[in-house]
Amino acid sequence: MNDAIDGTEAAALAAALNGLGYRGDGNALTAMLAGLNAAPEPFDDRAWLSLLAADIPADVGDRLERLRSRLRSQPTAKGPPDRLKALRTELKARGVDGFVVPRSDEHPGEDLPAAAERLAWITGFTGSAGLAIVLAETAAIFVDGRYTLQVAKQVDGTRFEVKHLIDDPATDWVKEHLPRGGRLAFDPRLHNVSWVERMRRTLEQVGGTLVAVEDNPLDAIWTDRPPRPVAPITVHPLDLAGRSAAEKRQALADDLAKHGIDAAVITAPDSIAWLLNLRGGDVPNTPVTLAFAILSADATVDLFCDPRKVTDAVHSHLGNQVMVASPDAFGEALDRLGAHGGSVLADPTTANAWIFERLHRAGAQIRREADPCLLLKARKNEVELRGARIAHLRDGVAVSRFLAWLDREAPGGDVTELSAVDRFVALRAQAPEFRGNSFSTISGAGPNGAVVHYRASEETNRRLERGTLYLVDSGAQYVDGTTDITRTVVIGTPTDEMRERFTLVLKGHIALASARFPSGTTGPQLDPLARQFLWRHGLDYDHGTGHGVGSFLAVHEGPQRIAKLPNATALQPGMILSNEPGYYEAGAYGIRIENLIAVREAAALPSGRSDFLEFEVLTLAPIDRRLIETSLLTASERQWIDAYHARVHDALTPQLDPADRAWLAAATDPLPD
Amino acid sequence: MNDAIDGTEAAALAAALNGLGYRGDGNALTAMLAGLNAAPEPFDDRAWLSLLAADIPADVGDRLERLRSRLRSQPTAKGPPDRLKALRTELKARGVDGFVVPRSDEHPGEDLPAAAERLAWITGFTGSAGLAIVLAETAAIFVDGRYTLQVAKQVDGTRFEVKHLIDDPATDWVKEHLPRGGRLAFDPRLHNVSWVERMRRTLEQVGGTLVAVEDNPLDAIWTDRPPRPVAPITVHPLDLAGRSAAEKRQALADDLAKHGIDAAVITAPDSIAWLLNLRGGDVPNTPVTLAFAILSADATVDLFCDPRKVTDAVHSHLGNQVMVASPDAFGEALDRLGAHGGSVLADPTTANAWIFERLHRAGAQIRREADPCLLLKARKNEVELRGARIAHLRDGVAVSRFLAWLDREAPGGDVTELSAVDRFVALRAQAPEFRGNSFSTISGAGPNGAVVHYRASEETNRRLERGTLYLVDSGAQYVDGTTDITRTVVIGTPTDEMRERFTLVLKGHIALASARFPSGTTGPQLDPLARQFLWRHGLDYDHGTGHGVGSFLAVHEGPQRIAKLPNATALQPGMILSNEPGYYEAGAYGIRIENLIAVREAAALPSGRSDFLEFEVLTLAPIDRRLIETSLLTASERQWIDAYHARVHDALTPQLDPADRAWLAAATDPLPD
Repeated sequence: MNDAIDGTEAAALAAALNGLGYRGDGNALTAMLAGLNAAPEPFDDRAWLSLLAADIPADVGDRLERLRSRLRSQPTAKGPPDRLKALRTELKARGVDGFVVPRSDEHPGEDLPAAAERLAWITGFTGSAGLAIVLAETAAIFVDGRYTLQVAKQVDGTRFEVKHLIDDPATDWVKEHLPRGGRLAFDPRLHNVSWVERMRRTLEQVGGTLVAVEDNPLDAIWTDRPPRPVAPITVHPLDLAGRSAAEKRQALADDLAKHGIDAAVITAPDSIAWLLNLRGGDVPNTPVTLAFAILSADATVDLFCDPRKVTDAVHSHLGNQVMVASPDAFGEALDRLGAHGGSVLADPTTANAWIFERLHRAGAQIRREADPCLLLKARKNEVELRGARIAHLRDGVAVSRFLAWLDREAPGGDVTELSAVDRFVALRAQAPEFRGNSFSTISGAGPNGAVVHYRASEETNRRLERGTLYLVDSGAQYVDGTTDITRTVVIGTPTDEMRERFTLVLKGHIALASARFPSGTTGPQLDPLARQFLWRHGLDYDHGTGHGVGSFLAVHEGPQRIAKLPNATALQPGMILSNEPGYYEAGAYGIRIENLIAVREAAALPSGRSDFLEFEVLTLAPIDRRLIETSLLTASERQWIDAYHARVHDALTPQLDPADRAWLAAATDPLPD
Repeated sequence: MNDAIDGTEAAALAAALNGLGYRGDGNALTAMLAGLNAAPEPFDDRAWLSLLAADIPADVGDRLERLRSRLRSQPTAKGPPDRLKALRTELKARGVDGFVVPRSDEHPGEDLPAAAERLAWITGFTGSAGLAIVLAETAAIFVDGRYTLQVAKQVDGTRFEVKHLIDDPATDWVKEHLPRGGRLAFDPRLHNVSWVERMRRTLEQVGGTLVAVEDNPLDAIWTDRPPRPVAPITVHPLDLAGRSAAEKRQALADDLAKHGIDAAVITAPDSIAWLLNLRGGDVPNTPVTLAFAILSADATVDLFCDPRKVTDAVHSHLGNQVMVASPDAFGEALDRLGAHGGSVLADPTTANAWIFERLHRAGAQIRREADPCLLLKARKNEVELRGARIAHLRDGVAVSRFLAWLDREAPGGDVTELSAVDRFVALRAQAPEFRGNSFSTISGAGPNGAVVHYRASEETNRRLERGTLYLVDSGAQYVDGTTDITRTVVIGTPTDEMRERFTLVLKGHIALASARFPSGTTGPQLDPLARQFLWRHGLDYDHGTGHGVGSFLAVHEGPQRIAKLPNATALQPGMILSNEPGYYEAGAYGIRIENLIAVREAAALPSGRSDFLEFEVLTLAPIDRRLIETSLLTASERQWIDAYHARVHDALTPQLDPADRAWLAAATDPLPD
């Protein structure tokens, strides 16, 4: 590899593209390719070319691919040998005593672009949640119970004290370690307001000050930090979205106007994707583009995102009511909202503290309310529900082919957690509508199945062995819908205990799936229906029962949720949720049975009552009959299972080859007496 | 009757009592008898004599009884012919534009002394909840859905506009009707702080002022307002309380000290009764004495109550760590707490606004936290639980004798709602430990059973007819425990619909009674277990599923509750709750099945797990087998019913006469196949 050669090639290619309408030079092209490389692997290998010019000749395309590939595989320049030391030098130069490094982005969401993986860069910890605080002499990392083992492996304990995120909160540690009167810096773009308010009160108690920085000091020393990702934006067509972006904008704008609100700041990428019927590829698993938006009460939208991601086709889709600007212009737009003394809605759970501070300084009247897209996005329309049904039928075929393959291969002892995942993804990828996983697959054999947030790696990879359970929780993004399914299957023969526990989980799954409930009922009210049978045996599971699911969007979305924790959102027709009770025997096995369900109005009731809701089951795949202890089921529970399996059989059979058809027929047979 | 004669007799009796240690004259004795008459009818007819002197000779006692009885039956002096007009004149004289009249007392609690029935006096409305606002030209009364019919009958609609307490809140009405810049007066002793804050904000919107009055203007014109009640205080002995008052004081005081709190203001009469192991008779149904208390961090208590209620025996029980003072001294005691700059706990849900204001002005640091007695009072100790079991066995005998009588008599057509209540109370009163009803009995035949808060009266009284359901919800106060039970029985033959609905209610009742659940679970999490079967049929009931119950105290007590509304209190061992799902077919019938249950640690679980809780069923009385549709029950539900009935049979049989034994044997037979 040779930087000079790549530079020459980039200049040559830019010149060739200039003739096709591209306006950048060789440096701009190199930056663009770096941005593309900072996004996750694209599903459609060549789609990115459209960001440069239309109708790129095949040979130029091939050269661009090669250049991009070379840039990607270049070893990144080494950072300073001791990053922690470099950060401390930087902090000292800036006159502050410490800095907070959360795992977060300027936007809400679990999936971060590479440029935002600051916590991993400074500590080595790659878990999905955590926070570090670096002081002049000491440092600490805070992670939750899921990551106790992982943090010990990844983080140098002599440099970072390891603390529990909930039990030993960072505020306590700061109180103890920050020097009296000390100044603790933080990047307000990476924290929400309630965090800032809590930390500020804590520091006041010890005479300290919380200092917001405009430039992140860690970024200053992270010399080879990846650029912000530049994945192409695509249009989510009306025949999948069901409602035009113009209609959505107008409906939300009318509501803002009704409540005397001038504009709403929207920072959740999936809300923006839903509102404007756009999809993107900037982060793993969720097809969103990173952007900010301001929706005004006149139904216009200012969309702040890298203009290089916006093709002419997207511009034409957005129309003249949606103005695209660079993210650099976002701050000044907030200032303008404030300058008019405007009443501006911002969601304190999704908008970062920098936005609140900027609006406040500019003189805006801030209305702290929920992102106005949330509830409408959660209530899928008829077109989205139709898409969900088709996506689940397609996904059910892939799941069943996978389970049939597993039944044939696993007892031979040649299947591992990782090879199973490869097979599963390959089967799903055969569908032209497939756009990748909706989250990292959980593939847990035996005791690994008991680790709720398990991710198989080369180090932990286990073979699927006879007499053990295998738990696989996975999901796909299809253009017409997002799926999320967990099946637990036995390899060989299960123990009686496994069958009993599986059946208790199943009874809870059925109780929730077949529940009817009055309008106004919230998720937490339904949660115990799924737990009651485990509870009677003194058993439980330490996670929620159901989360909202997007429509070719985030696999975890709000505002509804079925869990023990309070949630005031009533379940409403069109909401898609998961139904996933489980049971985990540490060191032995894990059980989870997960289908997606959609809320709908209850069919005519014998008593003639109305205003009741029920669930439609979307997921179509067999539940392992070998793990069901039929003597523990009531007659109506047996009926539910048999009817579900008959439905699965009838729906999937036409799309399977003969071998898999035979497997499915056996797997969906009525339960034995 | 002749006032002069009574005055002479009072003076003569006072003179006779002076020789026995009584210190008052004839006027004091007359006031004392008026105070006694302002309390509910005492259960022990002669106990009040001990408030005057020990060892009163029988003849003097008889003369005192006669004098008291004559004073009671004296027609009270007539109020002004138009009370509303008189109040308006009084308000004008005071320079205010309106006054708020709630149905409430200075203390929290549903049961008020006669002196606090201001809403009834000014409007005529005698329901248990409501509020009136009187302005110069207009007035309105606000009641909830339960009282729509009653308010129309009792209140002159030309004088009081009738509004819905929740749907048309008083704040809206005030905004519309109070003159611009108007002054609305309220008695801060009768409102909690959150009401005052809400109303104050409302008035600010219309330029009005909320004015706290020191003297209630309605009291000024209510010339024959009864005095505050003076019922004797009794000691609740250690062998029923299970824990001495000294221990309780010390435990709470230690906790105050630990949290840096100097004192707690306690205003709930049942909290004071629990803390000091006292009982009283100032209000109906709940054996409490009206008082305020200040518990200091040094474990001393200042008890503010009418000293005439405190006998030497009570003084000696209280000891020298509890100082008794007149309620008139309460305000100055609050001032002293504030003057020391003290940190003072007051519960915003039970302490009135006057207390908060007085503490605030005096300079106290107010800690708005829950009444510290609440949780400890709710968690019954082993002695209280033993008392509860004995009380429920005794109550079960009375209930079964009543139900047996009903089965014999009702089909003949001679039983009415009111005659049934008389019979029921007479049966309970045969027990020497009986101390009255724990609430007004709900005795609802046919369609009256569908009125959830029904109170039978001569006007509404219905005969129990064949082919209808009869619902009876009642409870007793015994010295060792408080009971609350609802049974629904059929007179003659039920319809299939009645049997189906009854069975759905029963399935919910069983699901809650037999639930096991992890420590930390709250009441709202269990609520849907009781509703799920009704829900599946599109049915529900519009009330909570369970309330806390005191130990020879309030039949409704917190902090725990099983209901749809949020409640953050985890259920804990020793808590007693009701389990009372129902179903109401308006105009036709009502169904409710209520037992009391106590939370306990779950018995050893097969899996060896710990930290789970379950319920012990306290109530012992048959559930009408004729209303159970056995085909709708699962095997384990049948088992539950048969086991419960076997337990009821074995416990009650020894205490019944032969006829009732035979009835009980049939009523508790295993369910037919």
